[in-house]
Amino acid sequence: MFDYTATYTDLYQLTMSQVYFHKGLQDETAIFDYFFRKLPFEGGYAVFSGLEDLIKTIETFHFDEKDLKFLQAQGMDQAFVDYLKDFRFHGNIYASREGDLIFPNRPVLSVEAPIIETQLFETLILNILNYQSLVATKASRMRLAAGDRKLVDFGLRRAPGTGGYSAARAAFIGGFDATSNVRAGRDYNIPVSGTMAHSFIQRYDNEISAFRDFASVRPHDCVLLVDTYNTLKSGVPNAVKVGKEMEKNGNRLKGIRLDSGDLAWLARESRKMLDAAGLHYVKIAASNQLDEKVIKSLLSQNAPLDLFGVGTSLVTGHPDAALDGVYKLARANNEPRLKLSENMEKINLPGKKQVYRLLCSDGSFYGGEAVAGADETAFDTMHHPTDPHKSLTLNGFVKEPLLEKIVENGQRLTAPGKLEEMAAFTRNQLHKLPEEFKRFENPHIYKIGLSTALKEKRDRLVRQHKLG
Amino acid sequence: MFDYTATYTDLYQLTMSQVYFHKGLQDETAIFDYFFRKLPFEGGYAVFSGLEDLIKTIETFHFDEKDLKFLQAQGMDQAFVDYLKDFRFHGNIYASREGDLIFPNRPVLSVEAPIIETQLFETLILNILNYQSLVATKASRMRLAAGDRKLVDFGLRRAPGTGGYSAARAAFIGGFDATSNVRAGRDYNIPVSGTMAHSFIQRYDNEISAFRDFASVRPHDCVLLVDTYNTLKSGVPNAVKVGKEMEKNGNRLKGIRLDSGDLAWLARESRKMLDAAGLHYVKIAASNQLDEKVIKSLLSQNAPLDLFGVGTSLVTGHPDAALDGVYKLARANNEPRLKLSENMEKINLPGKKQVYRLLCSDGSFYGGEAVAGADETAFDTMHHPTDPHKSLTLNGFVKEPLLEKIVENGQRLTAPGKLEEMAAFTRNQLHKLPEEFKRFENPHIYKIGLSTALKEKRDRLVRQHKLG
Repeated sequence: MFDYTATYTDLYQLTMSQVYFHKGLQDETAIFDYFFRKLPFEGGYAVFSGLEDLIKTIETFHFDEKDLKFLQAQGMDQAFVDYLKDFRFHGNIYASREGDLIFPNRPVLSVEAPIIETQLFETLILNILNYQSLVATKASRMRLAAGDRKLVDFGLRRAPGTGGYSAARAAFIGGFDATSNVRAGRDYNIPVSGTMAHSFIQRYDNEISAFRDFASVRPHDCVLLVDTYNTLKSGVPNAVKVGKEMEKNGNRLKGIRLDSGDLAWLARESRKMLDAAGLHYVKIAASNQLDEKVIKSLLSQNAPLDLFGVGTSLVTGHPDAALDGVYKLARANNEPRLKLSENMEKINLPGKKQVYRLLCSDGSFYGGEAVAGADETAFDTMHHPTDPHKSLTLNGFVKEPLLEKIVENGQRLTAPGKLEEMAAFTRNQLHKLPEEFKRFENPHIYKIGLSTALKEKRDRLVRQHKLG
Repeated sequence: MFDYTATYTDLYQLTMSQVYFHKGLQDETAIFDYFFRKLPFEGGYAVFSGLEDLIKTIETFHFDEKDLKFLQAQGMDQAFVDYLKDFRFHGNIYASREGDLIFPNRPVLSVEAPIIETQLFETLILNILNYQSLVATKASRMRLAAGDRKLVDFGLRRAPGTGGYSAARAAFIGGFDATSNVRAGRDYNIPVSGTMAHSFIQRYDNEISAFRDFASVRPHDCVLLVDTYNTLKSGVPNAVKVGKEMEKNGNRLKGIRLDSGDLAWLARESRKMLDAAGLHYVKIAASNQLDEKVIKSLLSQNAPLDLFGVGTSLVTGHPDAALDGVYKLARANNEPRLKLSENMEKINLPGKKQVYRLLCSDGSFYGGEAVAGADETAFDTMHHPTDPHKSLTLNGFVKEPLLEKIVENGQRLTAPGKLEEMAAFTRNQLHKLPEEFKRFENPHIYKIGLSTALKEKRDRLVRQHKLG
């Protein structure tokens, strides 16, 4: 794991903090919201991931000796550097549950803390949550495409440096079964999976010797890579031979892996050859530049594939570059704040807020959420954020509050969540989300509305700024 | 920094190693080559980055107690786990110089070591070098576009988790001047840079109070963000006012930053307003979804911009997902090895090799490199890897060997390189590369050829495999 210290931030968080400190504003409470504006992959939802990793850093986040020396060398004055010596997070954090589905333009996480603390955490929050949520969302799409086939993260080699470590975690939350990344498996308690590379076969003068050596040392976990020379003329026939030899010793060949060529056709032909030899139980795994669309296409062709190994597109979130999560000031100096923009949709929501998911009477998701002031006890209408002609009556819906206080005065209120529980939660929430939000092409748009009071507060502030 | 241990690898490296161990092959020497197949960004070159970070891990890479316990829990047998207890890297590494230009289908780095060691390092090598080289290449393209304007990495918030830490390093090698990432600045000795966010302005009831507070605390490093309310009606006029006030105190406003809107037009109008007030020395910085093509476009419109802050596209290498670097067995059991493929271009080069860059008599780059066996003392022709009708006589070229032995028997032979020297080296090498390889559209193709002996060795092995 990375040894985060408080300089894991953008310099401007420190320059702004220095000003707040010298102007005596360091203890003023501020509220910031983390949210994003655009769903990744032109999809209908995103999966929230990274929260537990983030919270873990909060309790130990401080400037170490090297940090303080470096800041001094950067010309930060002594009084401010002395102040930073004792820097700790003392605030409150309200957040969606990790693994839950999240949607644009509503708070996913809010920080309420002395303004310097809200600033110094900004970069860390964005860095961890943007990336893990992107990967978890990508993973969940592959899960939707793969049905109940196994999905394994093969991404470490093409991952963005040590980002690959947390990618394995996010992929598991999004619905992957295992990772090839041993260290992530160790630290996050994720099942690990792996077999052999082409180099193993090449080490030997012939393919079958390589297969036999592997089977003899790993008889209970033997998946043979069959495309080093010629998949159907050499790889699969040799795998069949070794599979039959294993049977004689009371063992079972677990699977074969296809890593090149026309995977649908090769899978069908391989399946026939395996079945003809009575090796019905041998699974077929596929890898090589897979993503949710390729997986969907392979299965729509009835390719008899049991496992998919996915690398690059999973850990990079290709073709998207990043989740566009931002962190905006909503309240400071006891006043609601907003960031103006020419584009009304980019104006943030002022003040402290709660988000309510609309549930139908059977517990299923209606497909919308209402944002209201945190102090609003009841409201029965939600308004489109920008179109004044659109509103929805909330009678008949159960309103489930989504932001939970998880850190109070710098201390976490709940025990660390278990990864498999988060993954199960994601699976369950995705199940409750109607199909039309899950399709890859032109998914239905999930409604985010504002309570009457919140909308009026925002509009009043906009008018004030335009007049001022 | 991440606390790399030897489980920072794919599980299959360990399953294969377990087989080698039980078959008594653990001390057999193997040679693997790291190379890539496709230039990123449809460009004409790539920049090699990550080597020093990689070498740093080599000396301390081992399985710790947690690793060994985890592997046991995964069912790895006791004898093999005991063997791993003392695992260290004892091999040799030959590599291109960090910061040098690299090209497809020729070794960038070769590892010669006991076969288990070559395997266990594979994932680490690919993970570090693929990502850093992608980012360094992207950075160098922005440098080409930006000329001598300043370039600052703003990417940490949109970076793939802790990958953002090494991205700052790679960006510096590729030609960036500074990073906003304080921790990377501290650890890698990269200049850090940062000013203020919109939230700082929003904290105040009016923009000019925020500007004044900032200028009073940071009079020597004051860059004002001018687009929070209205760039030309509010931000720039207020910045001019504060700039003139600073002059009265003997200080100078350093710059303003534009973060939205039409950057070319806003820069021109802002420049006029600053100049009209006698603030000719105030620089104009721009940020907001920049990449090399936007920078080039802005400058081709004569936008008077002095600094570019680049985030997402730099640290993610968008639109590419990853550098497609691979690591292939070239020699084992004293025999050259290759991986066959239906596609002749994907067949790797067998045996131990050296790469020679072709220099013209004036020291400039001809635009090609020859790959030969490491033991070839002289050769005067290079052949196209797949087209038998194409070859080039090498008389008249100086052949500069590129792979240098940097680790011997597990010990580094040279002192750690300095980052600023690598950056200077990249700058210098890019200067020597002819213009036609540097253009963004349809760049010239750099020639990679094989010596006669290497080509014959490869072709002989291909024939043997096809007959066998």
